[in-house]
Amino acid sequence: MSSSSAAPRREDRTDAAGTRPPMREALVAAAFRLFLERGYEQTTVDDIVALAGVGRRSFFRYFPSKEDVVFPDHERCLADMTAFLTASPEDADPVTRVCDAARLVLRMYAENPAFSVQRYHLTKKVPGLRAYELSVVWRYERALAEYLRGRLGGRPDGILHADVIAAAVVAAHNNALRSWLRSDGRDDAGAAVDHALGYAQSAFGGVPVPLRDEAPEDVVVVVSRRGTPLWQVVREVETAFARD
Amino acid sequence: MSSSSAAPRREDRTDAAGTRPPMREALVAAAFRLFLERGYEQTTVDDIVALAGVGRRSFFRYFPSKEDVVFPDHERCLADMTAFLTASPEDADPVTRVCDAARLVLRMYAENPAFSVQRYHLTKKVPGLRAYELSVVWRYERALAEYLRGRLGGRPDGILHADVIAAAVVAAHNNALRSWLRSDGRDDAGAAVDHALGYAQSAFGGVPVPLRDEAPEDVVVVVSRRGTPLWQVVREVETAFARD
Repeated sequence: MSSSSAAPRREDRTDAAGTRPPMREALVAAAFRLFLERGYEQTTVDDIVALAGVGRRSFFRYFPSKEDVVFPDHERCLADMTAFLTASPEDADPVTRVCDAARLVLRMYAENPAFSVQRYHLTKKVPGLRAYELSVVWRYERALAEYLRGRLGGRPDGILHADVIAAAVVAAHNNALRSWLRSDGRDDAGAAVDHALGYAQSAFGGVPVPLRDEAPEDVVVVVSRRGTPLWQVVREVETAFARD
Repeated sequence: MSSSSAAPRREDRTDAAGTRPPMREALVAAAFRLFLERGYEQTTVDDIVALAGVGRRSFFRYFPSKEDVVFPDHERCLADMTAFLTASPEDADPVTRVCDAARLVLRMYAENPAFSVQRYHLTKKVPGLRAYELSVVWRYERALAEYLRGRLGGRPDGILHADVIAAAVVAAHNNALRSWLRSDGRDDAGAAVDHALGYAQSAFGGVPVPLRDEAPEDVVVVVSRRGTPLWQVVREVETAFARD
């Protein structure tokens, strides 16, 4: 069930020009130092740029708002996720594919455990940051649902199935992510997310198979308690085979 | 699968004293008239109270902010949902119970189709209202998850299952709600939500049974294509029975 080894590699933290922008990193570091020392609400953008030794305009070049500096990598991760889903092979199992896409988010958190754990504690205390986080989670969920709608939308209830599966996958991922954050980043994040996503996959695994001509195979299923006399099982099989 | 007829009745729109507060209704009506005429951002609380013919203090007695007047019934619905879940019989099927709890939300929307459809179009246009709505949806999801955690939390992976099922139920509900809103409130809301929740129930129906002593039955399942020679099926059954 686990396919973490098949999950895509993420690019390094680079800007559009393909280089790491040190000023951006410096702004994030300064912001977090102040958020932890003084509190999020008590820290202004002016405080952050003063500590980082840059001007206000540099801040807003990288971050639309103070909230965005708390989650500096989500935009890139959303773009990676969309690119990963867009590049999906046509015959990929759609549920496996969205599970692998969700693993990209966990990997972003796990890349920098200390930062992720600090942010987790900060976000819990600031309602505005929780609201921001909800909007980010919603965007991940929409990205997964859009891909699933494309794969399942032509079928009866395809949109419904897409929305429900996307929500279940995100909830499973977030359950694993929170467990890992509560372990202060010490647990095995990959194992936790594989286990959680395995549950979502088992719930929906049988439903959305890849699109293809559907001539349902004519299959007989016989369920017997172990210990049932063999003659009785054979009679059941015969009866089932005879039924039309 | 449907149990809409068993869903709880909701109380009329009353305040703590048990009476309908006409001033609250007047404020909602005035606010929506202005939001639709001028736009949400262009309308101030002062505009609303002037049209309703009351003072600012009356507005804030009923609504903490301008956003809250757009969703005047969610707090009551959340309280109804929590009360409904708290009053659950111990032997209730937990998945059926959270589906019935979700029906309370759809019923609130369907009580007043014209208002709900107006608000749907307004919310789509105003990012701040969408963010507010996300936070409300998150609170419903947490209410369902809390109940499920209480029912399933003692089992292996109970918390994970609770979170994933709650998310799937909310997504199914919201899919039906959006379809109904897009029909301008003309479709049968109850039928749509029964159908959508039926999907979530079918995905998780087999997993979280009511708590009881668990001695897993030792069962053998044999799957054969119809047309397989009987001798071959019998050999498979023999092999399966012999395995320990």
